[in-house]
Amino acid sequence: MRAVGLIVEYNPFHNGHAYHLQASKEVTGAEVVIAVMSGDFLQRGEPALVSKWQRTKMALLNGVDIVFELPYCYATQKAETFANGAVSILDAAGTSFLCFGSESGEISSFLQTIDYLEVEQRTFNENIKQYIDTGVSYPKALSLAFQQLPDSEKYLDLAKPNNILGLEYIKAIKHQKSNVIPMTIPRKNANYHDQDFSSATIASATSIRKAIFNDSNGKSAIDQYVPEPTKQLLKEYFQSNQVFHQWENYWSYLQFRLIQSSPEELQEIYEMEEGLENRLLSAAREANTFHEFMQKIKTKRYTWTRLQRLCVHILTNTKKEEMGLISENASYLRLLGMTTRGKEYLNKTKSHLSLPLISKLSSYKGKEINLDIKAARVYSLGIPTHLKTQMLRQEFEQPPIYIR
Amino acid sequence: MRAVGLIVEYNPFHNGHAYHLQASKEVTGAEVVIAVMSGDFLQRGEPALVSKWQRTKMALLNGVDIVFELPYCYATQKAETFANGAVSILDAAGTSFLCFGSESGEISSFLQTIDYLEVEQRTFNENIKQYIDTGVSYPKALSLAFQQLPDSEKYLDLAKPNNILGLEYIKAIKHQKSNVIPMTIPRKNANYHDQDFSSATIASATSIRKAIFNDSNGKSAIDQYVPEPTKQLLKEYFQSNQVFHQWENYWSYLQFRLIQSSPEELQEIYEMEEGLENRLLSAAREANTFHEFMQKIKTKRYTWTRLQRLCVHILTNTKKEEMGLISENASYLRLLGMTTRGKEYLNKTKSHLSLPLISKLSSYKGKEINLDIKAARVYSLGIPTHLKTQMLRQEFEQPPIYIR
Repeated sequence: MRAVGLIVEYNPFHNGHAYHLQASKEVTGAEVVIAVMSGDFLQRGEPALVSKWQRTKMALLNGVDIVFELPYCYATQKAETFANGAVSILDAAGTSFLCFGSESGEISSFLQTIDYLEVEQRTFNENIKQYIDTGVSYPKALSLAFQQLPDSEKYLDLAKPNNILGLEYIKAIKHQKSNVIPMTIPRKNANYHDQDFSSATIASATSIRKAIFNDSNGKSAIDQYVPEPTKQLLKEYFQSNQVFHQWENYWSYLQFRLIQSSPEELQEIYEMEEGLENRLLSAAREANTFHEFMQKIKTKRYTWTRLQRLCVHILTNTKKEEMGLISENASYLRLLGMTTRGKEYLNKTKSHLSLPLISKLSSYKGKEINLDIKAARVYSLGIPTHLKTQMLRQEFEQPPIYIR
Repeated sequence: MRAVGLIVEYNPFHNGHAYHLQASKEVTGAEVVIAVMSGDFLQRGEPALVSKWQRTKMALLNGVDIVFELPYCYATQKAETFANGAVSILDAAGTSFLCFGSESGEISSFLQTIDYLEVEQRTFNENIKQYIDTGVSYPKALSLAFQQLPDSEKYLDLAKPNNILGLEYIKAIKHQKSNVIPMTIPRKNANYHDQDFSSATIASATSIRKAIFNDSNGKSAIDQYVPEPTKQLLKEYFQSNQVFHQWENYWSYLQFRLIQSSPEELQEIYEMEEGLENRLLSAAREANTFHEFMQKIKTKRYTWTRLQRLCVHILTNTKKEEMGLISENASYLRLLGMTTRGKEYLNKTKSHLSLPLISKLSSYKGKEINLDIKAARVYSLGIPTHLKTQMLRQEFEQPPIYIR
């Protein structure tokens, strides 16, 4: 049985994801689809709309066979660290292919860009540094440095977020000397950051979340953009009066933590740079909402995403010291869910897996998984009190989701 | 001008306090009344019903002339530390008398008890230790040890909380070699811990708070137990839709902080004893309310009050290290409010005050006052979002209350 690996967030699973999944199976001929999915906090530094268990269910009902959790220590990181963690999981799970969506859609442009970087890294880094010194963010500087090259059309457009991620996936495969074969398919229509609906059936997860939160008829407004199982699950979610998670639900905790902390303590938080802690402290005293807070702390120097990730680390109390102990590659495969076919695949490959497979949390101990548990617990505080306690326990007691 | 000092919490100011104030003036003949009042968190380990600014206003409208804040580092402590801090403030303010209410009402029984303790401290401590070894709390052990003495009726009944406090006040006066003269007046009717109304006009602050929180007609139920200015202020408070502070308002913050913390971090919190942190951590994951949480963590060994104070320190993130740096006696007089007569007194005595007088926060720096500021900010988070920001700022911007 050959497996294709997808690196996903499914926040929530929409038609674009369904297309990516289907196309990945077609181009690779794989019989099994393995998704490495972020847990409750995402790369963009946001809590997931619904928990990883709900999103696992969506994934399985939509055609994924196995879902592994991308641990917190990789999921809430810059593209390079994120990619290394995710690729190491696919590699350990014996995945033949990694198929990612990209704006480019051409694997050759990824390879050419990497080749160029391998030879010219030093001079290129200097170019990037020059842009950064003008006050722009790293991703922006990277993109500008490429545009400056004489034959820039040969290379990837690194202003596009999925191109950057793809580049990092391939770099990670090379770096890890992995046998996973990278493939890419062009993304359809919607741009990653799109705020509004622009196509008839494909919309970005961003615009879908926006519709859920902002439109009173969000339920039906998103219907045409998500496949039936997602529609069904979100409907049940609405009907059972559960709450969609968003940053504003966590704002009072973040504000509280900032207000009770000393600048020295905040300096210990992962990704806190010198001086930023004072900016955060004074903004916390003035802001009424998370959005207001973000407006107050943002500067040209740091991307919104980077600041949001920092806020997630404050919320989960993740320290520089802790993250410093984490290795570049994952140390376990945490199974969130599987279908019958996924189970069959795991039974066959179990003995060759190069990392421990965790389906019962209580049987495994480790510093990385402690971060996942803490993140899940903090995540569960973003819902009304009467639902909290059950969710607080879930992380420990929930067995992998199984869909027949 | 002679001043009498009162050590108070006024949570809220009621008829018993009015009686104490009046009687104190009568027995001492003092023209000025100075109150040393706890800030936003109280000795019992609870947030004050209304902020220190509101309680200062109540005090001034009810006959107090000057209100100084008892800093957080003394206000949320066991009787001995509390008393030392409060007495040192009265001493620095040039107060001639300290007049406290007690169950005993006889200054001689306090003095005899102190004389006995001074001579027999060592053997007495052994008796106390024996009781503690049976698993009872320190206050209980102290009371039992006294009851065991042959002529126990000569001494104070140390099962009574105001007798204990009074004893500590006098010990503090002796210890500090202060010239403040201690006097006591018998408390009228209500017992400190009374939950329900038992007299026609005097009720404990506990029963008044209970009526405010529990009875839908709490507003009028307390009318007969509080003087007119308190009634008026509480009425305005109700009408402006402000929120009375209670532990349950802070439960989600406490739970969050426990869930995001490591046992090692919790060990750094002031008053956290070895092993207690794990008990707190697991209770935080299971409890739905602060009351449930307290039920889960309480043991015979620790009084409810002691555990509540520990929870306050977690909330304000007050560390053993910080508290270790605090001196036994106060280092400043923070003026919360005054009347015209109070102002006159301060103008006359200003040049002899033995501690700096702070009426503008921005002009003073110090480790103790930082604890007060942090406590006030954390306190302000226990109200709905739209009121928070104003209150967060208040601590820094609020000038002393002045009542003409």
